[in-house]
Amino acid sequence: MLHLILADSELETVPLEISSDKSIGRKARKRGRRPTELILDSNYFHRPMKKLDDSERRGRPDIVHVCMLTALDSPLNHEDFLRFSVHTRQDKIIEVDPETRIPRSYNRFVGLMEQLFLTGEVPPENPLMKIEDATLPEKVKEVKPEKVVTLREDGERIRRENLFRELSRKDDLLAIVGGFPHGEFLSDVHSLSDQIIRIYPKTLEAVTAVTHIIQFYEEEHLENSLFDG
Amino acid sequence: MLHLILADSELETVPLEISSDKSIGRKARKRGRRPTELILDSNYFHRPMKKLDDSERRGRPDIVHVCMLTALDSPLNHEDFLRFSVHTRQDKIIEVDPETRIPRSYNRFVGLMEQLFLTGEVPPENPLMKIEDATLPEKVKEVKPEKVVTLREDGERIRRENLFRELSRKDDLLAIVGGFPHGEFLSDVHSLSDQIIRIYPKTLEAVTAVTHIIQFYEEEHLENSLFDG
Repeated sequence: MLHLILADSELETVPLEISSDKSIGRKARKRGRRPTELILDSNYFHRPMKKLDDSERRGRPDIVHVCMLTALDSPLNHEDFLRFSVHTRQDKIIEVDPETRIPRSYNRFVGLMEQLFLTGEVPPENPLMKIEDATLPEKVKEVKPEKVVTLREDGERIRRENLFRELSRKDDLLAIVGGFPHGEFLSDVHSLSDQIIRIYPKTLEAVTAVTHIIQFYEEEHLENSLFDG
Repeated sequence: MLHLILADSELETVPLEISSDKSIGRKARKRGRRPTELILDSNYFHRPMKKLDDSERRGRPDIVHVCMLTALDSPLNHEDFLRFSVHTRQDKIIEVDPETRIPRSYNRFVGLMEQLFLTGEVPPENPLMKIEDATLPEKVKEVKPEKVVTLREDGERIRRENLFRELSRKDDLLAIVGGFPHGEFLSDVHSLSDQIIRIYPKTLEAVTAVTHIIQFYEEEHLENSLFDG
């Protein structure tokens, strides 16, 4: 099983300190929410966000959206060999059931995240996503994987064979990918990881890291059964 | 070089026959455009779109967006071995320069597409995307590739080695992926293709086909130089 965690993701609700901003207030009224119930989105709240620490990287639900879309549609997920979860800057963990259908529309996805932060699980009738308080080390401990790797542009260049050495399809490999646009992990990934690896020597988008690690795993463990004739 | 064409993509402006719809008119006024200058979006124009032929598959700029985002951030593109283009239902071809930076925000992307359909190229000061009238066969003829493959769920299961047999890195492989949510290609891909292949026996999203064919090519032609130590 491949456990993929999008870590330190920039997904959060509007912080109290900017919740009295007029443009956020207008959007909240329009959506029938309190300002602090809205998902922080740098694309809409660029100006008020300037008051926040780390403002240049926060408010990026789009990164979570595109990573979820691609991860959940992968053959690896269809074959039930993937567990995808999201860890956020505020140490929340979103568990995503492999059967979840992610809204294709960005606005609907953000609406779903709003509801998730508000109620703790979505959809109400048959919850497929749940959000809980947990740090990245707590999540890793819960999975108890045979191996933990983190993807970073300054990681080690490795051969695919080495990544999977001594791991069978029954073993749990946990891969950590940063869910933020640039900068450093906020969590201490070094102490959690057996290996820090890279797939390319330049900065890549989170989604590119996600699709590549998934496909490495597919080719290692599903290729004979699926891709080849 | 890998030439990747997202074919029969459901990207178009609002057709004349539904342009007098009130909800479309409101959105057009808000954006300072004529109704027929807006990009058709099934998420916003679901009701008026019911009058259109093939209404259940049309108006999907989100598919083009996520495919462009992932294709242009791939190591293959960074290494200048990818040419990505979009062919649409109305036989328009969008040529995308490998250096193009695609807006992460869906709404900004749709705004950019609006401008592209209106002016023929974007951004104005230094055009990186151009749109022209051309059918899929015309585009294939222009590329003159050594081999053409189309990805379809009912295609042939193949080994990666066979896909690339007799092709060197200097040769042009052209891969066709459907840029629509479901149903059949509108273009006659059979007569254009040397091989119809599949990467998985079930229906996949366009983005999953895009990321997989790109990574196959990367592993065949870039692996020694990039991925391995």
